[in-house]
Formats: sequence, C-alpha cells, structure tokens
Amino acid sequence: MPLPRRVVIALGGNAMTGPDGSATPGAQRDAIAVAAGHVAEVVATGVQVVLTHGNGPQVGNLLVKNELAAHVVPPVPLDWNVAQTQATIGFTIADELDAGLAARGLSQRTAALITRTLVDAGDPGFGAPTKPVGRFLPREAAQRFIDLGQVWEDRGERGWRRVVASPEPLSVVDVPAISALASAGFVVVCAGGGGVPVVDDGRGSGALRGIEAVIDKDLTAALLARELSADTLVIATDVPNVMVDFGTPTQRPLGTVTAAQLREHAAAGQFASGSMGPKVDAALRFVDGGNSPGGGRRAVITSLEHISDAVSGDDVGTVLRR
Amino acid sequence: MPLPRRVVIALGGNAMTGPDGSATPGAQRDAIAVAAGHVAEVVATGVQVVLTHGNGPQVGNLLVKNELAAHVVPPVPLDWNVAQTQATIGFTIADELDAGLAARGLSQRTAALITRTLVDAGDPGFGAPTKPVGRFLPREAAQRFIDLGQVWEDRGERGWRRVVASPEPLSVVDVPAISALASAGFVVVCAGGGGVPVVDDGRGSGALRGIEAVIDKDLTAALLARELSADTLVIATDVPNVMVDFGTPTQRPLGTVTAAQLREHAAAGQFASGSMGPKVDAALRFVDGGNSPGGGRRAVITSLEHISDAVSGDDVGTVLRR
Repeated sequence: MPLPRRVVIALGGNAMTGPDGSATPGAQRDAIAVAAGHVAEVVATGVQVVLTHGNGPQVGNLLVKNELAAHVVPPVPLDWNVAQTQATIGFTIADELDAGLAARGLSQRTAALITRTLVDAGDPGFGAPTKPVGRFLPREAAQRFIDLGQVWEDRGERGWRRVVASPEPLSVVDVPAISALASAGFVVVCAGGGGVPVVDDGRGSGALRGIEAVIDKDLTAALLARELSADTLVIATDVPNVMVDFGTPTQRPLGTVTAAQLREHAAAGQFASGSMGPKVDAALRFVDGGNSPGGGRRAVITSLEHISDAVSGDDVGTVLRR
Repeated sequence: MPLPRRVVIALGGNAMTGPDGSATPGAQRDAIAVAAGHVAEVVATGVQVVLTHGNGPQVGNLLVKNELAAHVVPPVPLDWNVAQTQATIGFTIADELDAGLAARGLSQRTAALITRTLVDAGDPGFGAPTKPVGRFLPREAAQRFIDLGQVWEDRGERGWRRVVASPEPLSVVDVPAISALASAGFVVVCAGGGGVPVVDDGRGSGALRGIEAVIDKDLTAALLARELSADTLVIATDVPNVMVDFGTPTQRPLGTVTAAQLREHAAAGQFASGSMGPKVDAALRFVDGGNSPGGGRRAVITSLEHISDAVSGDDVGTVLRR
C-alpha cells in the first residue's frame, strides 16, 4: 500500500507515566523516552507525524497543588492546568524525540505548540458535569471548593470528588499553525489533553476565552486528524487490539473491521465508556467524516510498540477503513 | 525610514500582572488584554512580530504550590515550572491577541510555542547560584528542600530563600520552528521566561535535557532576535525611557544613544542589576551582534504604550542603533 502522507498519533497515558501509573517527573521522562523511540520509527517511514497525548495523571497532580496551596496563592482554572500539562509533556517529548530522530540520522525536529480547542459554552456538559477529576476529599474539605463554584459529588466511602464538563470538541483553533509546522517538516506535538478548552467569550467579536473543562483527548485527536486532512489516525494504547467479549470465554481481538461492525459492538456495550469507548468513537468519527484527499481514511487502535507497523500496513491492531 | 521586516518584542512583567503586581488569573488576563492591543497595533504596521515575555510572579506562584503539596504529589523541577508559565501566558496572549487582530481586520493569528533555550551545564551559575526564586521560609521549613539538593540562603530577618542558576543563554533551540511560523504569517509567542533551560545530556548524542535554572528573559530576547535575523528588538517595560542619574537632581531620560555612550553609563553603575541592567545589556548584545540583513539593527527600550511608535520610528524610548 502507498505510504500515508500525514498521520496523527494519539499517545495514551501509558506513554507518559511509569509502569505503575507513576507521574513523577522522572517516570514521565522515562516513559516518554520509550514512546519517542516508537514515534521516531514512524517518522523514519517518511510520513508527516502530528502527535497528541493524554494528560490525566498530570492534571490530577496540578489540581492537588492548586488545592493545597489555595490559602497562599490563587488557584488557576482547569483550562490553565491543561495548558500546563501541554507544556511539560510537550517539551519533554521534544527533547526525547529530537534525540530519537537525531540518533536515526533523520533531519526532522520536534515543535510543541500550545493548542486551544473550541467548545460550545452551551454544551450540556456545563450544566451537568460528569467527568471526575482530582483526588477524593472529605466533605468538609470539599466544601471550600464548592463555595468557589465548583461541582463536587459524593462518591461514597472514598469521599467527595470534583466533576467537570467534558464538552464535545468543535474545532482545534490552532490547526493552521499545526499545519504550517507539519508542512515545514516539523513533528508537531499539539492538542495535549484534548486541547485547552476555549469558548466564544460572548462579546460578539469572536474573541475566545478559556473555560473550566476537560476534553476527551481521543475525540480531539479524531477532529484534529480530520482538520489536518490526515490519512491515518493511530490511537496508541496499552493493548495491541480492541477486544470483544472481554473477560469471557469468547473473548477475541478485533483485526480489520468495518464501521458497521464496530458500531454494532459499541451498541452492544462492548467498550468501557472511560477507556476503549472514546477510542472506538474517535476511530469511527475520523473514518466516517467526509472525504479525504488521496483516498480513504484509516484508523488503527493498537499498542505503542506497534505504531510504526500500524502506519505502514494493516497487519497489526484493530483497523478501521472507510 | 523603511519598516523593519521582523521585530522581536519582549514584554515585561507589567504586561502580565495587575497594577499592584497581582498575578491572579484574572489580573493576568486583564493585563494581557491591554498589552495585546498594543501588540496588535505593531502587527497592523505590516511587520512580522515575534513576542517573548517574562514570568517571574507566575513561577513564584508555582514554586509555592510545589512546596505546599510536596508531601502529596511530587514537586516538578524548575524547568518544568518555566514551561508551565509559557503555556498559561502563551494561550492567554493568543486568545487576547487574536481578538485584537480580528478587531482590527487583520488576518494574522497567534501561535504559542513551547520553547527551549540551550545553556552550558558548565555555566558558573550552576556552581554558585545567585538568582533568588520563590518565597521566604523559616530555616526549618527550608531544610527539607535543602535536603533535596536545592540551594537556599539566609536572607536575614525575612528568612531563607532559594537561589538558582541564571546561566547565559547560548541558543534558542526552537528558532527554526519560530521562524517557520513567523514566515507563515503567525505572530509567534515564544521563549517565555527566557525559555525552558536545557543542556546537552552528556551522553554524547547531542540529546537535550531540562535543567533547574531560570534564564534572563531580556538576554534570551536579544539572542532570539539575532537568531531570527530580526531588524528591531523592542524591550517593553514600565517606563518610557532608560534614565541616568535616577533619583538625583541631574536625572534625565536617554533618547537615541550610541553603544559607546550606553556602555559608559553601564560601567558607571547607572543601571540596577535586577531591572534596567539586563535590558541595557540585551540591547547592546543585539545591536553589536554581527551584521543583519538589510541594514543595521536597532534596539528600543520603552514603555508598553509606545511599542508601536518604537517600531515605526526613533521618536520614543531609548534607541540604540548599530
């Protein structure tokens, strides 16, 4: 098959944290160094690579800092925290990936762009937030943040936990800059954590303003891939294939599937809403979303180790074609 | 005079904090909205604009959060904090400047790039750190961080304070990406806080790694302007002109000066090392630094309100020409 022209790779949390989920700076760097090697292999195949990534544990850490220092320094809103994780993960990927590219004799280098994603201020998520973030607190400790306007929920014996909106991504605001960098030969790291959520500020001028929310990073990756006219979307996770009947005697991995088959499995509740569900949804959105230049679109869900093979052919992972 | 082709503008702390120095998110946004209007006026003159900015109060806030949450979540190194401030300031500038550009009917938009600045791991600053950061703590509280390898100094009755290296910037690693974005028509926000300090990791491969330090943002601005072949460097601060004999009966503002005159004033101790000194040093480094395409280089130190006039002519600010 001909090599794709432009590829979007979405790195999962396992590419940015230690084997035990640890998000210390050292564990993050070590994990990123491994991921960078796999990404460099993709770049070596000659395609343009645009990278995006998750940020769950990293945002969690920042929320704890906000909370514990709130009596001394002003907490920053969640959109600022998302931006902060784009920066720390972004420059660490840039350091490690530049090294990986140089080690392979490749001339490309990495650019990490702070990226905003437009959402609708009227998204139902803002009225009824459902996405849990940060750590559990006793009711009394949570009250202080409820008084600041945050929404917290009683989660039983573990305590109370903050919930925020997870609105639909409508547009990746910085796509023109991402495209300019990719066209100029850079591997672009962008839209981390789904992008910094922004809304029209309502003053009628089209001006944007950050808003407290977290956007699903896989759904943003699908949107980003469409807006960049990418041919291939690779969603890297910690398993080589999407599974059906998981944990039962009929458990089996999905290889090449049609959108209709994948939708049927999803409708049957095969995919967990917090993990494989959004990845499957993202793959479907990308492949179904209109025409792409130069042929059909392809989405692959597979493990980090297989991303280079996933870009080059249909032999690994769960592959969805238009 | 012909308009300059490419201009680097360094925004001072007053462009990112409230009138009282407040660095709450709201105060930062309000200040940035004002600064963005002035920057949009510069863009309207038809030049390519590359923006950089300080981050002192913002890094200070992050260090307090690191400190107060250290018993729950791992503190991140100072280079990560610098990156975090690039992100929050960067996307806020992008939101406000995009609005300012749109309001003026300009087609350019803003791109905020996470930017690394190379320093020498052998810089004398690492052996004898001198730059104070973060808040004062009692000796007992500081000890815990001294035990982690940080350097803290007894600053008398206010307590102990951390000191870090402020190494010489050698190269802005991400200049090729900055240049690509500027050439593609973007106003680029980059190298905030002097850039994320990185060093060669010593493994012989040229790989980079973040290091705990803060780089003077004006010195990085001068380096950035040279590496981008900019014609003009504007250092925006809170006074319209550099003053000599400040606070004495012979106090007077400097207008157009020669490098020799400015060096003489500097040698006479006219400029405070923590404030105007680095700005004067940056102006001299930029203007003296080799040939620029299309004629001589020009550096202007002036207040934020005057940056557009400073780009267009020699009528405002302290102007240094080659």
